[in-house]
Amino acid sequence: MYFVTVRDHIMVAHSLRGKVFGPAQRVHGATYIVDAEFRSESLDANNIVIDIGFASACLKEALQPLNYHNLDELPEFVDAVTTTEFLARHVHRKVAVRVAGVFAGTLKVTLLESHVAAAGYEAPV
Amino acid sequence: MYFVTVRDHIMVAHSLRGKVFGPAQRVHGATYIVDAEFRSESLDANNIVIDIGFASACLKEALQPLNYHNLDELPEFVDAVTTTEFLARHVHRKVAVRVAGVFAGTLKVTLLESHVAAAGYEAPV
Amino acid sequence: MYFVTVRDHIMVAHSLRGKVFGPAQRVHGATYIVDAEFRSESLDANNIVIDIGFASACLKEALQPLNYHNLDELPEFVDAVTTTEFLARHVHRKVAVRVAGVFAGTLKVTLLESHVAAAGYEAPV
Amino acid sequence: MYFVTVRDHIMVAHSLRGKVFGPAQRVHGATYIVDAEFRSESLDANNIVIDIGFASACLKEALQPLNYHNLDELPEFVDAVTTTEFLARHVHRKVAVRVAGVFAGTLKVTLLESHVAAAGYEAPV
Amino acid sequence: MYFVTVRDHIMVAHSLRGKVFGPAQRVHGATYIVDAEFRSESLDANNIVIDIGFASACLKEALQPLNYHNLDELPEFVDAVTTTEFLARHVHRKVAVRVAGVFAGTLKVTLLESHVAAAGYEAPV
Amino acid sequence: MYFVTVRDHIMVAHSLRGKVFGPAQRVHGATYIVDAEFRSESLDANNIVIDIGFASACLKEALQPLNYHNLDELPEFVDAVTTTEFLARHVHRKVAVRVAGVFAGTLKVTLLESHVAAAGYEAPV
Repeated sequence: MYFVTVRDHIMVAHSLRGKVFGPAQRVHGATYIVDAEFRSESLDANNIVIDIGFASACLKEALQPLNYHNLDELPEFVDAVTTTEFLARHVHRKVAVRVAGVFAGTLKVTLLESHVAAAGYEAPV
Repeated sequence: MYFVTVRDHIMVAHSLRGKVFGPAQRVHGATYIVDAEFRSESLDANNIVIDIGFASACLKEALQPLNYHNLDELPEFVDAVTTTEFLARHVHRKVAVRVAGVFAGTLKVTLLESHVAAAGYEAPV
Repeated sequence: MYFVTVRDHIMVAHSLRGKVFGPAQRVHGATYIVDAEFRSESLDANNIVIDIGFASACLKEALQPLNYHNLDELPEFVDAVTTTEFLARHVHRKVAVRVAGVFAGTLKVTLLESHVAAAGYEAPV
Repeated sequence: MYFVTVRDHIMVAHSLRGKVFGPAQRVHGATYIVDAEFRSESLDANNIVIDIGFASACLKEALQPLNYHNLDELPEFVDAVTTTEFLARHVHRKVAVRVAGVFAGTLKVTLLESHVAAAGYEAPV
Repeated sequence: MYFVTVRDHIMVAHSLRGKVFGPAQRVHGATYIVDAEFRSESLDANNIVIDIGFASACLKEALQPLNYHNLDELPEFVDAVTTTEFLARHVHRKVAVRVAGVFAGTLKVTLLESHVAAAGYEAPV
Repeated sequence: MYFVTVRDHIMVAHSLRGKVFGPAQRVHGATYIVDAEFRSESLDANNIVIDIGFASACLKEALQPLNYHNLDELPEFVDAVTTTEFLARHVHRKVAVRVAGVFAGTLKVTLLESHVAAAGYEAPV
């Protein structure tokens, strides 16, 4: 099993509906450092899982609509509780669309929300 | 597959019986930076694997009886060789007890003992 | 010259007035990982610059009123452009008040806003 | 499942044949920070997966023939496109030879080529 | 004293003339993770030392002519021993030119060449 | 001003006499990740502040007598409260002796005791 990982980040505001979230029910924010890991059983003719430049560009494009936004105000999140787990799955889907046809394997997206907490989502694409 | 990771640390002394350990047979010590990763196939109604605050508290409670101790003097470790691997499994069990009923899935505990070495234990809970 | 550094973090929302800030003029957010470094020419009778536990507590207290808030809505920031530099000075002042009488020397506060950008403020206290 | 990870690094030059690599077709270089993770279902009589000192030595030996070299000039890479993925598999094989008879399980080798990109290879040994 | 730091990286090959460099006399390479820290006694009307986006762009431009090159082949380094210290001063000068007129203060450039070694240069600009 | 930094680590046990230390009055331990930064106004004929290999060796030698020991049992620390600050000064002196005649400038020694706390000592040598 081979894998390639690229990193980018976003800076967003949001609030989380639900008593479990305590003070995070208020509008607050986060820097999410986002890792996208592409896993594959084999390499292509260029000895790569996926071109790192292309992978970085796909991740950046997937993150762009979120960056410097209040997620509470984005139409696609209107009914969502935008936890780190939820956002990881969201980014996963957006990256998956961009790499379709170029990459087949497992994609793991990790969002580091601080030096002491992270969450993520992993599934085949 | 979703996952959430929280981080804490302990500062302990111990010695390791066995020639393989060389100078680590002497009483020495370590800062273990401890990551607990909770993996689950699905999210709950709040879009979370486990509440990060609760997970952090469980990890801290699991670590507390070890923190600022000489492990050689703790009754529960009297016959144990307290390697990093062993301690990872120990912390795993202690965290598992605390999250029982709230979390079902895979728990991975990693102990970073320096910037160049780590060990861990991973199993369902 | 001796120094001690402690680390904590906050998760806040805000917006930045001024064309220079581009998309950061919108409400967005950040995780600020905050380092407080205390520098002193000498140690006290306990061989310390400042008790690390006390320093950590002072930093946490200084950060608490900001954590999980939209800074745009806090009365004390109503007329402020809450850049990372500005916030570093703000935290500096709040920590300085708490350590007064216990610590005399230079305090440096650094806010890491991502894995690729940081800002800070340093001055005697 | 238990695991142990050790870290080392190499500083090498190389060039990558293939249009996909863009400017990396030129002779350039990289510091690869290399993590070797050893995974095993059980511990030995010393409560370890593998002796960390031995694992570190095996990794260092595996890396030594590459360190401070231009990979384009090494006979064993004469026909190879020495991508990070390819090098991860190469190091994997070299480490596997050294730990044979001492360790049986899964070995994962990760090469971090910068603070924003990495690649690796994982397989049983 | 306020400061802002931005990070980027380059991947280069080179060789170092001089017996002191041992195996680094051969053509090898490095990933340099480059931090540029801008220090100033005061903030401008926007509450910033320097616009982080502008600072990042200046750093990227300063690094671009080096990135994915063999430094031994660049005309401007033909007689130079391109140690990390030397390269830090080189980047310092290139960044200084780009921020002239916008930033006045101290610029510190740090090149991390691995997880265990770094070098840098600091001077007013 | 130029600078070079090298990193190593030690794993030690100790206890701290004094009520201010709370639970750290018990025998416990720490991994200290140790950075030695050498600062100089100029470079030598090889374009270096100090040879990184030599600096690393000096740091390792300075740390060796402490590594894998209980500091409470070392004769030279018999009357000392071995705080992180104190140990930083100790390492500073030991490194200074080793680099005397080769390096003149400022030496800064930092001991990271966890991901959230550090201490150090800086002085001319």
